[in-house]
Amino acid sequence: MNLIILVEQDFRGETKRAVLRGRRASHIQNVLRAGVGTVLRVGLLNGPTGKGTVVAQTDAQVELEVEVSESEGPRLPCTLLVALPRPKSLRRILQTAAAFGIERIVLMESWRVEKSFWGSPLLEPSALNEQLILGLEQGCVTRPPEVIIRRRFRPFAEDELPSMASGRLALLAHPRSATLCPTHATRPFSLAFGPEGGWTPFEVELFKGAGFAPVHLGDRILRIEQAVPAFLGRLI
Amino acid sequence: MNLIILVEQDFRGETKRAVLRGRRASHIQNVLRAGVGTVLRVGLLNGPTGKGTVVAQTDAQVELEVEVSESEGPRLPCTLLVALPRPKSLRRILQTAAAFGIERIVLMESWRVEKSFWGSPLLEPSALNEQLILGLEQGCVTRPPEVIIRRRFRPFAEDELPSMASGRLALLAHPRSATLCPTHATRPFSLAFGPEGGWTPFEVELFKGAGFAPVHLGDRILRIEQAVPAFLGRLI
Repeated sequence: MNLIILVEQDFRGETKRAVLRGRRASHIQNVLRAGVGTVLRVGLLNGPTGKGTVVAQTDAQVELEVEVSESEGPRLPCTLLVALPRPKSLRRILQTAAAFGIERIVLMESWRVEKSFWGSPLLEPSALNEQLILGLEQGCVTRPPEVIIRRRFRPFAEDELPSMASGRLALLAHPRSATLCPTHATRPFSLAFGPEGGWTPFEVELFKGAGFAPVHLGDRILRIEQAVPAFLGRLI
Repeated sequence: MNLIILVEQDFRGETKRAVLRGRRASHIQNVLRAGVGTVLRVGLLNGPTGKGTVVAQTDAQVELEVEVSESEGPRLPCTLLVALPRPKSLRRILQTAAAFGIERIVLMESWRVEKSFWGSPLLEPSALNEQLILGLEQGCVTRPPEVIIRRRFRPFAEDELPSMASGRLALLAHPRSATLCPTHATRPFSLAFGPEGGWTPFEVELFKGAGFAPVHLGDRILRIEQAVPAFLGRLI
């Protein structure tokens, strides 16, 4: 936790005092070993960052005096499209997307997505949010990516994909394609990752039709949780 | 498992027949749903790749007729230096290093490494090997990286680090340093990652003295398992 994310409910009315319990309080006390007077780096969810000074604590809670005025740096202007991965991988992807400060993530259907993955409780808004917050705390980011869920491939591909490619660098991660992924995106970009086993040829055609260019990153086949940071690191 | 890695002990004497049990047999039967006649992609550990045809199977074992003749592509000429991370992260780093096909990984001491991490059973050669094999299977690589363990920072930094920088691109991942990490390494490279909390100023000075240049990858602070693929993806 490199940044403690604060939400409205943490504050006592109109004051600058925030009271934390549970996971954050425990982290402040047991990992950061903060005492009264310790100054911590904090940020308001979707807001500025600054410092929080511990002014009181008990076993159960930590009270911070909060001063926030620094606005966050720019976000990474990226829309990440991911064929819904298994829950264990999805957790990591959500955290990675938030830690990199990307703008938007689309969790989407694809022929080779295991149908059971769509039943995961991780897709509930509160569970998604929890993973995003973990990523924000890690990356020192206060604005989580917007999460969009699309369970039908074809209508999404036909109705929405073209707008996600238009005016942007639009890339489809596709092993064994002809082109090496470019570096240094100089404009907003969209980046799509298939399921284990890859996109079907039909899906690749729809992506291409929408304006996405297939690109690879060498001969190796990476897990989605390795591939996402590898491509993002390249495009920064 | 995109490539089934075979070792000498899998083979019956001089023949081309390999008999697999346990994890690989179970994967072939239950995930790949192979039957007699199915052709699988196989590779010999530290050797060529090719195909394995299922010629017989029982509940407990799968017998393959093996033909290997394709030599592997070039490895990624990278030496990865990592301040020993917590075991959960170490597993992922080992798998990532193997999947990317890198040549060498150094697990090293640093002031902020938790001393207890050095007691992890994961540092036993057989446990390290198990994680590397998982990475090879994922990345379709047959040669695992050499793993070097160095428990004393200063002698290592003074005696061995300079040779790991000499004639190579030598980079120290260091958030808030002045230079953005380059892309497209055109020669062999060494890449060093600190512990949670980062390298100490003294450690940074020793790295610099040995020829390593501090570089960053934007304002975000990434977990080691996100940072390693992000930097590798950039330098490919």
